[in-house]
Amino acid sequence: MLSTLKGFRDFLPVEKRTRDFIASKIRHAFELYGFEPLETPTLEYASLLLGKYGREADKLVYSFKDRGEREVALRYDQTVPTARVLAQYQNQLPRCFRRYQMQNVFRADKPQKGRFREFMQCDIDVFGSTDMIADAEVLACTYAAYRAIGFSAVRLQVNDRVVLINTLTPFVTPTCNVFSIVQTIDKLDKIGEDGVVSELVLKGFELSQARLCLDKIRQVLMSSHLAEIVRHTHELGVPREAVVFIPTLARGLDYYTGMIFEVYIEGYRAGAVGGGGRYDNLIKQLGGVDIPAVGMACGFDRTVEAAHELGVVSTTSSNTRVLMTVFDDTARAYTLELARILRSNNIAVEVFPGSGHLDRQLKLADSKSIPFAIIAGSKEIEQRTCTVKDLKTRTQETVSVEKLVDFINNSF
Amino acid sequence: MLSTLKGFRDFLPVEKRTRDFIASKIRHAFELYGFEPLETPTLEYASLLLGKYGREADKLVYSFKDRGEREVALRYDQTVPTARVLAQYQNQLPRCFRRYQMQNVFRADKPQKGRFREFMQCDIDVFGSTDMIADAEVLACTYAAYRAIGFSAVRLQVNDRVVLINTLTPFVTPTCNVFSIVQTIDKLDKIGEDGVVSELVLKGFELSQARLCLDKIRQVLMSSHLAEIVRHTHELGVPREAVVFIPTLARGLDYYTGMIFEVYIEGYRAGAVGGGGRYDNLIKQLGGVDIPAVGMACGFDRTVEAAHELGVVSTTSSNTRVLMTVFDDTARAYTLELARILRSNNIAVEVFPGSGHLDRQLKLADSKSIPFAIIAGSKEIEQRTCTVKDLKTRTQETVSVEKLVDFINNSF
Repeated sequence: MLSTLKGFRDFLPVEKRTRDFIASKIRHAFELYGFEPLETPTLEYASLLLGKYGREADKLVYSFKDRGEREVALRYDQTVPTARVLAQYQNQLPRCFRRYQMQNVFRADKPQKGRFREFMQCDIDVFGSTDMIADAEVLACTYAAYRAIGFSAVRLQVNDRVVLINTLTPFVTPTCNVFSIVQTIDKLDKIGEDGVVSELVLKGFELSQARLCLDKIRQVLMSSHLAEIVRHTHELGVPREAVVFIPTLARGLDYYTGMIFEVYIEGYRAGAVGGGGRYDNLIKQLGGVDIPAVGMACGFDRTVEAAHELGVVSTTSSNTRVLMTVFDDTARAYTLELARILRSNNIAVEVFPGSGHLDRQLKLADSKSIPFAIIAGSKEIEQRTCTVKDLKTRTQETVSVEKLVDFINNSF
Repeated sequence: MLSTLKGFRDFLPVEKRTRDFIASKIRHAFELYGFEPLETPTLEYASLLLGKYGREADKLVYSFKDRGEREVALRYDQTVPTARVLAQYQNQLPRCFRRYQMQNVFRADKPQKGRFREFMQCDIDVFGSTDMIADAEVLACTYAAYRAIGFSAVRLQVNDRVVLINTLTPFVTPTCNVFSIVQTIDKLDKIGEDGVVSELVLKGFELSQARLCLDKIRQVLMSSHLAEIVRHTHELGVPREAVVFIPTLARGLDYYTGMIFEVYIEGYRAGAVGGGGRYDNLIKQLGGVDIPAVGMACGFDRTVEAAHELGVVSTTSSNTRVLMTVFDDTARAYTLELARILRSNNIAVEVFPGSGHLDRQLKLADSKSIPFAIIAGSKEIEQRTCTVKDLKTRTQETVSVEKLVDFINNSF
């Protein structure tokens, strides 16, 4: 079968380089903020995963019997395995544990545009602290990661889940509890004010109550708790305009217990690229140990899509800087010597494996977007020089071996 | 279930950092030699994988029915998916394709010391060239990768499969074909000369023939073909003593068609850490397109084990350089400002999330092997200084904010 399964992807070099580049920027920002790497297995006992994500989600877990007849399942997210780690290694882990995790997760979901069955998640979380500094560190690190990728305008929309729920509670009706209201409010961006009001009416609200509910949330001021978190993010270097209080921001998941946020990139219209918040009760529910937590998960595919759309990553050229052509059999030793010199100066080189028409060799460089080709025949060997061809401008120059490294380094 | 499945592993930060460090060195060497990254899905159609690795190996493939009743299987190696890629994207890929791939593979094998059910492989391959430069590039890149990790004495044992088989063919008996002889010869390192002779006798050799066979192989000289490959590796910078001709080296797999090699690290006695060779017919068998190939696969776990045993990687300290303590509530803003300054100068910082006993905060830094702690109370705030504590020497010094970045940078 010469194809991938639906919802699964190959990443050929051009795309894979872009993804690796973005992942490395994210990883670097995570480490700069003191988060430490964690890796958990792709397969877990199915009993660990099932029943943790809700009934609908359970259907999306890839589970099966392995050859030892154990019920096993593929990683569905990174939070449940981490809850296991927190419980299993309690005595080995620091009391305040901040980890990042960047691994693929698997969901047997209907494949559609932008939704895949295997995709990477990038999570950071601070475990073991209820202090507002932890919330601020997560926000500031998230901002730094997106800035590091190259996005110039990153917006963190923040809200306080406690205040939101307190505001909504007086509006609860026998047919519509507070989480049902939250769910509807959460769609404000997608369906607009009229849409939210209509949906609340469908859920049993009187029209006037629905309008009042929305107005009330709008009027809510930032809580002093949230204000302090936001102040800390500014102290940590996040500019004022990058943090926006959105009193209607709800985030679907009902496990959040405090600050919640979503990450938007100006100019990218497909929605939030990441989000998170405080969830002080979840780890206990999942893994049995009572540990407060605040964290963020970034959608890597959306982030990559945004980077492509906004042109913040250049995918035009290879990491390989030089194609070393092989002029003829007498030139082989000299050619390999040049490759050795460049590589020992940290310049990435591909040696054309074989001699043959120079045109064919240069075509290979073009097909791989390698920026330079080096050619050396008998004349160059005698003079210990080589011809460096700039494959973009199609110009070329004779350079001595001694000056070759500098020449290539200065040509970027 | 608060444990991983047997044969599967968690990597907590200390170990994960070491692994990431080694992987980054390997990746960098691969790119320096012009190999480009490729990623394929974790799940494939089972029909792609089954029947490709031999009957015994088929039993080790994790395969199951997914929710759409498709027979699917977990990645077993990186060669078969790459053969699919080569066939599927024929027109998109360069004629001479050199790729690296570093992903986890899955084998339902009996877990035992050093053998896991999920483990990372690091592969490089040059596809589309039969030229000896391709063989030499693979050897030189392999050597560079292991040197980059920090191993000082790396040995490439090389042999020529064609010559080996030509030498053995006259010894073939009705009960023992040439691959059966190869299998026995391959055990020379493990069972010694007498062991090999005995096993050949058990396979139907007369004792004198068994001895003669071994002697004959020993007397074989390096073929001119292999000699030229080896010369090219030297031209590419691999020192003479690092490439050793071992005429009895056989490598079990019967798909090799030319140069074969194994990688040994001096001082690490558990065996080869990697190996490979030329396999010009395999890609056609696997994927249907006739493409010559030469490559290497490195066993990442063995490489990590060797790095630990020989002490070439330091795992003692965190990537986080500074724990910023929070003296009391009045010091929060100043503390966060210091964190911002350090981070904007690329120094990784963890801010202690919360105030509390200074001792408890310093204990956290110790438990994470963070080398420095910074303390700032009212006196420091007034003077715009801070106290930098070296947690190894337990000494401390007062440093002005202006000089803080230099102070930390110079303290490594």
